[in-house]
Amino acid sequence: MTKRVFNFYAGPATLPLPALKKAQKELIDFKGTGMSLMEISHRSKEYAAVHSEASNLVRNLMKIPDEYNILWLQGGASTQFYMVPLNLKIDNKPFEYVNTGIWSKKAIKEANFYGEVKVVASSEDENFSYIPKNIKFNDDTAFAHITGNNTIYGTEFHDWPKAPSEIPLASDMSSHIMDKVVDVKNFGVIYAGAQKNIGPAGVTLVIVREDLLDRVSENTPTMQKWKTHAEKDSLFNTGPCWAIYMCKLSLEHLKSIGGVPAIEKINKEKAKMLYDTFDSSDGFYKGHAKKDSRSLMNVTFNLKTPELEEKCIKEANEKGLIGLKGHRSVGGMRASIYNAMPVEGVKTLVEFLKEFKEKNE
Amino acid sequence: MTKRVFNFYAGPATLPLPALKKAQKELIDFKGTGMSLMEISHRSKEYAAVHSEASNLVRNLMKIPDEYNILWLQGGASTQFYMVPLNLKIDNKPFEYVNTGIWSKKAIKEANFYGEVKVVASSEDENFSYIPKNIKFNDDTAFAHITGNNTIYGTEFHDWPKAPSEIPLASDMSSHIMDKVVDVKNFGVIYAGAQKNIGPAGVTLVIVREDLLDRVSENTPTMQKWKTHAEKDSLFNTGPCWAIYMCKLSLEHLKSIGGVPAIEKINKEKAKMLYDTFDSSDGFYKGHAKKDSRSLMNVTFNLKTPELEEKCIKEANEKGLIGLKGHRSVGGMRASIYNAMPVEGVKTLVEFLKEFKEKNE
Repeated sequence: MTKRVFNFYAGPATLPLPALKKAQKELIDFKGTGMSLMEISHRSKEYAAVHSEASNLVRNLMKIPDEYNILWLQGGASTQFYMVPLNLKIDNKPFEYVNTGIWSKKAIKEANFYGEVKVVASSEDENFSYIPKNIKFNDDTAFAHITGNNTIYGTEFHDWPKAPSEIPLASDMSSHIMDKVVDVKNFGVIYAGAQKNIGPAGVTLVIVREDLLDRVSENTPTMQKWKTHAEKDSLFNTGPCWAIYMCKLSLEHLKSIGGVPAIEKINKEKAKMLYDTFDSSDGFYKGHAKKDSRSLMNVTFNLKTPELEEKCIKEANEKGLIGLKGHRSVGGMRASIYNAMPVEGVKTLVEFLKEFKEKNE
Repeated sequence: MTKRVFNFYAGPATLPLPALKKAQKELIDFKGTGMSLMEISHRSKEYAAVHSEASNLVRNLMKIPDEYNILWLQGGASTQFYMVPLNLKIDNKPFEYVNTGIWSKKAIKEANFYGEVKVVASSEDENFSYIPKNIKFNDDTAFAHITGNNTIYGTEFHDWPKAPSEIPLASDMSSHIMDKVVDVKNFGVIYAGAQKNIGPAGVTLVIVREDLLDRVSENTPTMQKWKTHAEKDSLFNTGPCWAIYMCKLSLEHLKSIGGVPAIEKINKEKAKMLYDTFDSSDGFYKGHAKKDSRSLMNVTFNLKTPELEEKCIKEANEKGLIGLKGHRSVGGMRASIYNAMPVEGVKTLVEFLKEFKEKNE
């Protein structure tokens, strides 16, 4: 077997090795059934146990209050970009969005199909290198929306804005769900494609406050309503069983190392190692995000020239440090250091970056 | 490891053992990358190869003409129930559906959100035990829709209806795609949740004729349009990479045994073994479907009493013949004998059924 590399891809992204090992071991014969989990009916007691364990892990790890539903859906955050406004709209009320980059813009584009969107704050003036401060949402809005972490620019909300008590705040947490302790009660809806921080591609976690499920119009196709899925515990139709199973294994690992408070501490250490390297590099490495907006998950940076960046990415790759190329829309470099990235991986990257600087200054 | 059982679940369903073995072998280290396929960017060259191989296999196995797009989507056939009318509707034209059971009804329910549905044929009068004959679709319809195989009742279209040349015919082939040779040119759209005949749950195959992609209104959320996915080769957003990979492995196996013509022959043999057993049982086993409508994939049958059926299911289960309970909406028994069910599995079931009859007559 090839030596395991350190994988800094932005998503699909690295998974905990113990989760992969367990999946491999059980792949052909799931818990003595003589079948693969992929072959078992989604209505079987064996799969039902996986399904409820995955949901329970999410609930316990994030300390989600009882009045919130946990949904396992398909279609990624891109599907939630329309499901959020479709399910939360109120006639004649606008929706308020914060624009912190490409993913916010995509969400705004879809919301426009359902009503008037007001952008109440934006960091577009400085190429999305910061999270706007003092965000105010208004009382006459149907809902408010933010993108919690911005993969492309490496910015993250550290102080969450508060919406007026009657206004549900929705957040796309695809790229940082469970990276730190979050008070779920601050949100009406949290959604996240699993493939960055909690599992593989193919399943979307949606956490939605129960009272919001009834807003949706009766005249809405069945699959587009959160309510449909909430009423059937995400088993209205056949779900992405394997992806949910992988989330379960990944979250079991997170639980085993101390849960969200423990990983928050580790994530802060990992991110600090990289940001400190930039800050003490005399400008050789330049972080894209402003200091108070720096992401714990996606560390974006530039070198002096695109040629030097290319050289750096190539040499890193040769040393088993994979996926460091920045998003095609902004260039530069990006190290995605999600929950499953070991401290050792970041240490190895930091050593490499220091060495590369010495050789190329 | 537990002995592999014969799994007659209706879906998720049995997969080819060689596909599972390969998946297991590659799970932690995909082709010497030092990463799992689940951890690799969907924009990487390694995943790109998997993606295009999966599509090429579908195209070659089904002999799909160039003017058709192959899409890998999420959300199951239940999502296509609304995407079909949404993408094919024409103002002021009705849609024509054939009602062959619960899944047809679900499709009709969603179509009603988008226009007027005319049911041009139905087998509801005899509890969906047959496929209507001499189906006629009209010229003034936006599109026609059928359910190719009816899992719950065990009926299947053997002679496909023809729609007028300008009217696209859409078929839900979730439970029998690639069970027999089909002339794709007869259809405008074919869709299938993968989890019955070609892969695991979590991905939906949609085959759509290119000229139909432009029908959809511009005023449609991005993810709901086939066109979005066609233009980006199903990589508009992060897709269900693992599920597509499993389809690839499963279809490679199908190709290795001779493709669709070969499996059609095997499927007919397998189905005949079971139907012959019923027909020669002096009424001990009674097939639900009329003879000319019998499915190659889902063999539904009843015993004299529910108690006897329960006993039969229980004893089969003890012998490693799993998943024989009929759908909760109709009761009785059902053996789903998809492409991946070995002949040996059906032989073992037939022997068991004959023995059970002798003991319980």
